[in-house]
Amino acid sequence: METAENTTPRPGDASVPSTVIGLDIGGTKTRGVRFEDGRPVRDESTGSSNVQNVTREVAAENLARLFAMIGGGQVDRVLAGAGGIDTDADARALADLIEPHVPGAEVTVVHDSRLLLAAGGASTGVAVIAGTGSAAWGKNADGEEARAGGWGFLLGDEGSGYWLGREAVRHSLRRMNKGLEPDGLTAALLESCGVDDPNKLIALFHSEDTDRRYWAQRANAVVETAREGLEISRQLLDQAGRDLAELAAQAVRQLGLPGPVILGGGLGMNVEPLQSAFRAGLAAHGITDVRVLDQEPVFGVLQILAEQA
Amino acid sequence: METAENTTPRPGDASVPSTVIGLDIGGTKTRGVRFEDGRPVRDESTGSSNVQNVTREVAAENLARLFAMIGGGQVDRVLAGAGGIDTDADARALADLIEPHVPGAEVTVVHDSRLLLAAGGASTGVAVIAGTGSAAWGKNADGEEARAGGWGFLLGDEGSGYWLGREAVRHSLRRMNKGLEPDGLTAALLESCGVDDPNKLIALFHSEDTDRRYWAQRANAVVETAREGLEISRQLLDQAGRDLAELAAQAVRQLGLPGPVILGGGLGMNVEPLQSAFRAGLAAHGITDVRVLDQEPVFGVLQILAEQA
Repeated sequence: METAENTTPRPGDASVPSTVIGLDIGGTKTRGVRFEDGRPVRDESTGSSNVQNVTREVAAENLARLFAMIGGGQVDRVLAGAGGIDTDADARALADLIEPHVPGAEVTVVHDSRLLLAAGGASTGVAVIAGTGSAAWGKNADGEEARAGGWGFLLGDEGSGYWLGREAVRHSLRRMNKGLEPDGLTAALLESCGVDDPNKLIALFHSEDTDRRYWAQRANAVVETAREGLEISRQLLDQAGRDLAELAAQAVRQLGLPGPVILGGGLGMNVEPLQSAFRAGLAAHGITDVRVLDQEPVFGVLQILAEQA
Repeated sequence: METAENTTPRPGDASVPSTVIGLDIGGTKTRGVRFEDGRPVRDESTGSSNVQNVTREVAAENLARLFAMIGGGQVDRVLAGAGGIDTDADARALADLIEPHVPGAEVTVVHDSRLLLAAGGASTGVAVIAGTGSAAWGKNADGEEARAGGWGFLLGDEGSGYWLGREAVRHSLRRMNKGLEPDGLTAALLESCGVDDPNKLIALFHSEDTDRRYWAQRANAVVETAREGLEISRQLLDQAGRDLAELAAQAVRQLGLPGPVILGGGLGMNVEPLQSAFRAGLAAHGITDVRVLDQEPVFGVLQILAEQA
């Protein structure tokens, strides 16, 4: 295993090797794609194999299941992007779980934001993930890296699905405290949660039956009512886009880059009003090379290998 | 057991009965004071006996320990204020645990904010708690009640100790992301947490070893550095005071009251810059009858009984 920083091309590597497995290892899901001669031939997902999110045993099981589906064995390279990989030890722990499935292959573990950048067709720049959580990560041509946000749901996750879901709850409780009738957003949220009274959202939010993903999925109530023209929902998506732009701008400034900034994640790739606010927020910082990701980050692996070849 | 709303004076009650026990039942502590002929003769604390925060067994044990210390037996009245008492069923569950210790006594359970109002010498008005969490609660002469905030640490707790501790962490992480050296607040926070690097605060914040109280206690780092003149810490206390004032103003407006607003809780009673900002925030709403509590809420019980007599 080598981290991205010390991977050196092996003798004879002219370009991308013939059999490559790309892994995108998130906190809730592991996605694996097998590429042969540069074309994806298998694409499967299992549960998380990130040892920071699940036990080592669960991670090992999920990887075994994934490799059973996409095939291990004769593989030249495995490139895995994973959330929360901040140290060589983090990367090593993951690589140890991958190597038994691909004897002889070179296994490289990188931060998952790096996959996102590559999937956006860039080797330097800033990647922004707006999904259940949020984070910005970038690197420049000198190999310097910068991060902004990504501190987890209790401390940040500005502009994320969790943030939108939580703000929808807060909006509903604020109206309740003021003695106002439920508006469209509250109605959509209550229906989505299957409860009949905003007051019940408090216990539900703190319940063990709901988690970050659950509340991130409630962001749909915001997206749908914004589409219907509800002002508060439009405002929340606008705020989310601008907060994400601030994260990105912070990383761009750190790295002394002109761009590009690449927006990914489920919300980032799919919610137009959030994308518009993101572009507007970055334009205010003079950053105009903004790209919305049009393929999943795992497809960034070939780009990374080509850069390293 | 009767909730406050349906308690009626018993025949012959001329004023406060001779032996009264007041209980203030919080999420982490139960405080009990025994009053004889209007004077406190015992004052003790045990762990929480709030069935919303601990198991029924733990609640029963803590109450048994408390009554062993302050004496049960021949008692005329018990008045218990408790957090999270929103329904008659909540109140009943608590009363069931109290009654065996005081056979024949009349047991009344009220929302803990009501104790706070009474301890401030008021029968109508708005009480604001600024401690580990935050909430505003009030009632007017028609018996109408209003609440603002108090949605728990994931959804609100504006201006609370938890909020201050969390903002201190966020400030430290923001500086770290920007590549800046730790300032006075970060240094105080790191020392208070026993870690050497802001990056370690992320895992510590999400760790099972730390809870809401832990982070609320870290508010001390803000209070101390504000005292030394650090601008960011002063700003955080100012924001906390103003956010608490907004909660109070919301409840005041709902109730159509001129005041008073009574500020309690550990932070509310002890942190001068927060109190100033609180007064300033309310003054902006035209509310000038603002009192900082000078005795613990449990001492409000005699006031409540006198009102009911």
